[in-house]
Amino acid sequence: MNKKTLLLCCAAVMLLASPALYAQDATATELLELFQDSFDMIWLVLAAALVFFMQAGFAMVETGLTRAKNAGNIIMKNLMDFSVGALAYWAVGWALMYGSSAGGFLGTDEFFLGGADYVLYRDWMFQVVFAATAATIVSGAMAERTKFSGYLIYSAVVTAIIYPISGHWIWADNGWLAEMGFHDFAGSTVVHSVGAWAAMIGAIMLGARKGKYVKVDGKTRPKAIPGHNMPLAALGVFILWFGWYGFNGGSTLSGTDLDIAHVFVTTTLGAASGAIAAMVASWVAFGHPDPSFSLNGALAGLVGITAGTWVISPFGAVVIGLAAGVLVIASVEFFDKVLHIDDPVGAISVHGVCGAWGTLAVGLFATGVNDPDVVGLFYGGGAAQLGIQFVGVIAVFAWVVVTALILFGILKAADNLRVSDTEELIGLDIGEHAMESYAGFQIFTNM
Amino acid sequence: MNKKTLLLCCAAVMLLASPALYAQDATATELLELFQDSFDMIWLVLAAALVFFMQAGFAMVETGLTRAKNAGNIIMKNLMDFSVGALAYWAVGWALMYGSSAGGFLGTDEFFLGGADYVLYRDWMFQVVFAATAATIVSGAMAERTKFSGYLIYSAVVTAIIYPISGHWIWADNGWLAEMGFHDFAGSTVVHSVGAWAAMIGAIMLGARKGKYVKVDGKTRPKAIPGHNMPLAALGVFILWFGWYGFNGGSTLSGTDLDIAHVFVTTTLGAASGAIAAMVASWVAFGHPDPSFSLNGALAGLVGITAGTWVISPFGAVVIGLAAGVLVIASVEFFDKVLHIDDPVGAISVHGVCGAWGTLAVGLFATGVNDPDVVGLFYGGGAAQLGIQFVGVIAVFAWVVVTALILFGILKAADNLRVSDTEELIGLDIGEHAMESYAGFQIFTNM
Amino acid sequence: MNKKTLLLCCAAVMLLASPALYAQDATATELLELFQDSFDMIWLVLAAALVFFMQAGFAMVETGLTRAKNAGNIIMKNLMDFSVGALAYWAVGWALMYGSSAGGFLGTDEFFLGGADYVLYRDWMFQVVFAATAATIVSGAMAERTKFSGYLIYSAVVTAIIYPISGHWIWADNGWLAEMGFHDFAGSTVVHSVGAWAAMIGAIMLGARKGKYVKVDGKTRPKAIPGHNMPLAALGVFILWFGWYGFNGGSTLSGTDLDIAHVFVTTTLGAASGAIAAMVASWVAFGHPDPSFSLNGALAGLVGITAGTWVISPFGAVVIGLAAGVLVIASVEFFDKVLHIDDPVGAISVHGVCGAWGTLAVGLFATGVNDPDVVGLFYGGGAAQLGIQFVGVIAVFAWVVVTALILFGILKAADNLRVSDTEELIGLDIGEHAMESYAGFQIFTNM
Repeated sequence: MNKKTLLLCCAAVMLLASPALYAQDATATELLELFQDSFDMIWLVLAAALVFFMQAGFAMVETGLTRAKNAGNIIMKNLMDFSVGALAYWAVGWALMYGSSAGGFLGTDEFFLGGADYVLYRDWMFQVVFAATAATIVSGAMAERTKFSGYLIYSAVVTAIIYPISGHWIWADNGWLAEMGFHDFAGSTVVHSVGAWAAMIGAIMLGARKGKYVKVDGKTRPKAIPGHNMPLAALGVFILWFGWYGFNGGSTLSGTDLDIAHVFVTTTLGAASGAIAAMVASWVAFGHPDPSFSLNGALAGLVGITAGTWVISPFGAVVIGLAAGVLVIASVEFFDKVLHIDDPVGAISVHGVCGAWGTLAVGLFATGVNDPDVVGLFYGGGAAQLGIQFVGVIAVFAWVVVTALILFGILKAADNLRVSDTEELIGLDIGEHAMESYAGFQIFTNM
Repeated sequence: MNKKTLLLCCAAVMLLASPALYAQDATATELLELFQDSFDMIWLVLAAALVFFMQAGFAMVETGLTRAKNAGNIIMKNLMDFSVGALAYWAVGWALMYGSSAGGFLGTDEFFLGGADYVLYRDWMFQVVFAATAATIVSGAMAERTKFSGYLIYSAVVTAIIYPISGHWIWADNGWLAEMGFHDFAGSTVVHSVGAWAAMIGAIMLGARKGKYVKVDGKTRPKAIPGHNMPLAALGVFILWFGWYGFNGGSTLSGTDLDIAHVFVTTTLGAASGAIAAMVASWVAFGHPDPSFSLNGALAGLVGITAGTWVISPFGAVVIGLAAGVLVIASVEFFDKVLHIDDPVGAISVHGVCGAWGTLAVGLFATGVNDPDVVGLFYGGGAAQLGIQFVGVIAVFAWVVVTALILFGILKAADNLRVSDTEELIGLDIGEHAMESYAGFQIFTNM
Repeated sequence: MNKKTLLLCCAAVMLLASPALYAQDATATELLELFQDSFDMIWLVLAAALVFFMQAGFAMVETGLTRAKNAGNIIMKNLMDFSVGALAYWAVGWALMYGSSAGGFLGTDEFFLGGADYVLYRDWMFQVVFAATAATIVSGAMAERTKFSGYLIYSAVVTAIIYPISGHWIWADNGWLAEMGFHDFAGSTVVHSVGAWAAMIGAIMLGARKGKYVKVDGKTRPKAIPGHNMPLAALGVFILWFGWYGFNGGSTLSGTDLDIAHVFVTTTLGAASGAIAAMVASWVAFGHPDPSFSLNGALAGLVGITAGTWVISPFGAVVIGLAAGVLVIASVEFFDKVLHIDDPVGAISVHGVCGAWGTLAVGLFATGVNDPDVVGLFYGGGAAQLGIQFVGVIAVFAWVVVTALILFGILKAADNLRVSDTEELIGLDIGEHAMESYAGFQIFTNM
């Protein structure tokens, strides 16, 4: 943006120096400004549409990796967290995130948008789909046992309050983390970690699904509960990867930023490396190349590359992706086998752990080429940036953990968090929604 | 467009006044014109691609909401109505819709395009996907009992004749409804109602599916026939919502119209509100938040906002969407329980009733900001616009009902409308296409 | 590109002639150059994203048309051929395809990209998704019996070496086929035939699936093995068609090439005609309109139109598509019933035979309007272009057959090509990946 603004200013100054040409060039200048606006408009709304489509990806991944008896419930959660989230972010969220800053901690105006110009509309459109992405991450980790009405309340609170406030810290001009130099280009922390830490607290407070952890000789043993539709899960990952080009690419915030190509390349290499590393790691660890881990590996690579996609080289993207692919497996195993936190789709590991990894990796791999102010440890920048990234990761973690504890605590106290054992057994489709997702198919009812 | 054309004209006039600069600025002017054309080109072809993708959305929604034994047939109808429709709209439809107008009633030239310039190609590409959308709406309402060969004939007729002629009235420059001031920005009436009223006549003339309405003690009782694949239906809705950004956004017809953002915002809020309202209404009416109604609520909100997306405020979009979400449930119940018209996916209510609602809502909620000539009742415009909208809704309803009666009447007389009872029982996949859609899965055959 | 470059040059020349205006117009010129770059950037990265999404299409088509017991394996192959292919094309493939040419036969530098400018990044991004498309075509023809580890090796070799070298001949500036005048606009031969001929050799060397061909009275009889999920296959075709707009449209390589509309129109008509022709042909040949052939007909039309999409009229596109739709059925029957080559999804016929047809069709139907140097036999160009197209088709066929024979020969010799009979029987999901794709569903295990 800066270069173009400068060029436009220069043109304006010179017009004053040559009055004879004023009228003529004024029209040309207007056109050039219109074109600049049009590039930004087309780029951001198309990117927003792609990010919106990620909702379909999340719905398919989460449905595919859980059981048939809960498929309709998962879908309702995905549909409604976007719908509720869009209204919440329109009424409140945008204002808290991008309204006039109160000390770098939260925005204070522009509730219900409070304006009608195209820049406001454009920017809201691009931001609302990010807010909804943060919200929808949670449904996977809390799948197969959460009350639908409680989930609706959660969706409104996270998109109206929790996400926008930490988002303000990082993406608003005066945000305190932004002023500190924290760099999260497209939201490894702002979006993914926020969703994942909320998901973690939710999963802890819910407790595990019935039958997930069995006591044998005094030891707790985790039991794998396989998803019911791997093709849908895979479709979801492809949709997410496709939409991620809008997620990361759109985060240039300008249609004339030629670094868009850089972002696309690092995004592609990060995702591909994540998938490969997870496949190899699962092969080594479990004796076979595991589809569900490989799919999560691609997502891990995407989450990992999101913070640094603009400031990291292609080679750095490959390293970050490879590490994310291994990390996601280690993390899933750790949460499952050591902490016994039941996360049916691995959302905490994919979005939280790899989101933190990607954010920290900026402090290691940023080359300083695109942004001279962001240089990582491995590229001669010392540990300063790494330290700042660490502060941001911790601050957002603390904020989300505390607010999610309050939110889910209230829901639990009001008995609005977990469905009854009977309902869990027969499935939430029948229990919450009085329907079957696959009427006519024969399904093993004891799954 | 107008502003830019003006700017380009100004530039041209001034060039004549300063001959010394002529040659130099001529090249710049050419470039600026090329850029303007390129914005429009990129915007319209990408929007067209998104609208094309809505075919996948319709296919998944209709397949998911009907039975497994007819899935292959539904898919064939969706594939072929686009394919047949594309050739029909190339040969005839475009000419009747956008050829030189005969008295505002229909176009008369440009059969087989009849030209080869990029504007013609671009505009045809954007329009053909709308024509096919109107056509494909019908397959849902007529699902599970319509002869495939009859459906092919219907597809050709609707895209070659029925849709283009009423479309000419509204979207051609000289169309009689356009001249009257009728406003349907992206096609609540032009596209969605046309498809839905044809669907209604088709569903009436076909009669209900076997077992759908049962006589008990002299009273007709409707029986719910559940769809077989809710995840696919949900995927379809997400795809439709995604594609709708091209449908409504592309209808600016210009890549430098900065109101694109306005359109995206109202589209998003309308859809989200529709989903929420339908969820709440189903909860109140039936005691549970219903997935299939909530999905249809999102579509109802989208259809409802389509006519006024450009002239309505975000707040108006929320109101229109909420009303559409309630309306779609009331309408589905009315058609099913009162009129006993069997519409397996609710297409008549979603696209017809909510299409009419959205069209009329322009006469209520248009703010006059983007188009000073279109002001609704609630924004000080009086009832004039509402009256015009009403005329348009009725005129298109009458046109489609009459032509669809003739079309389906001929098909029925030729015994080319409904499959045999036996075929309906075993399913159209085996009956019409000699295949099973889910070979290897165990399916309840008595569904 | 040429026209715009000329305009920019003109502007520069005139600036030197009018020094007083130098500074002012310099900034304007910079802006115009930035805008030109931005058009190309946005167009190519969005097209690349669409082509990436075709991976989801291939995954769904191949999964849907094969058996449930192998669904997870198909998906893993589709995920990993893109992931492995992306790294291979980054490290080696791009260099061999677009590095400095050694005599028109292969590129020799730019390994690991070897640069960091936005043009390089942009072009790599657009090309890598084409390379991966070629790779993924193979997985369908080799489905249900190929060792996963062997497939990984294949993926690396085809994207690093086989595809880039023949691609260099045609799409690199100095490629020997390019210099001869061979025209393959978007890759009927460069991409589709390369994938398909490799698939053919793979399928031959693998041998048929158990139970596919049965000896009865000394005659070999093919047995149809139906796919398990027709809705997913249809979804895949819609996704592919959608992505193809990026595939063909992006191949203009410029966002200000107004022939983009021409490409979209011929692509649409080619695909629609292919679907219709295959439907009719299957109806005539087998007595019913066959869904799986109709879906493949749409793909056949798309492959067929890909080479000539820019140089052929809409009418030509219809003829090419219709022919492709018939051809694909004849070819599938020929490979199955005469040659007994087992291609579960018809990939050889769709991508190879129709790719060759589309490439040759340029020599018949090119009108000379968009490119005066490419005129077909039916448009007064004589047989010259047809001869050149024939040379290209044969050269690429020979190159791929020979290299694929070596590649698959080595894999077979190392016993890394085909799974054991037992594994094939129980399915590759359990055999290779220790999982089920549809846990909880009841599946006929003897399929």
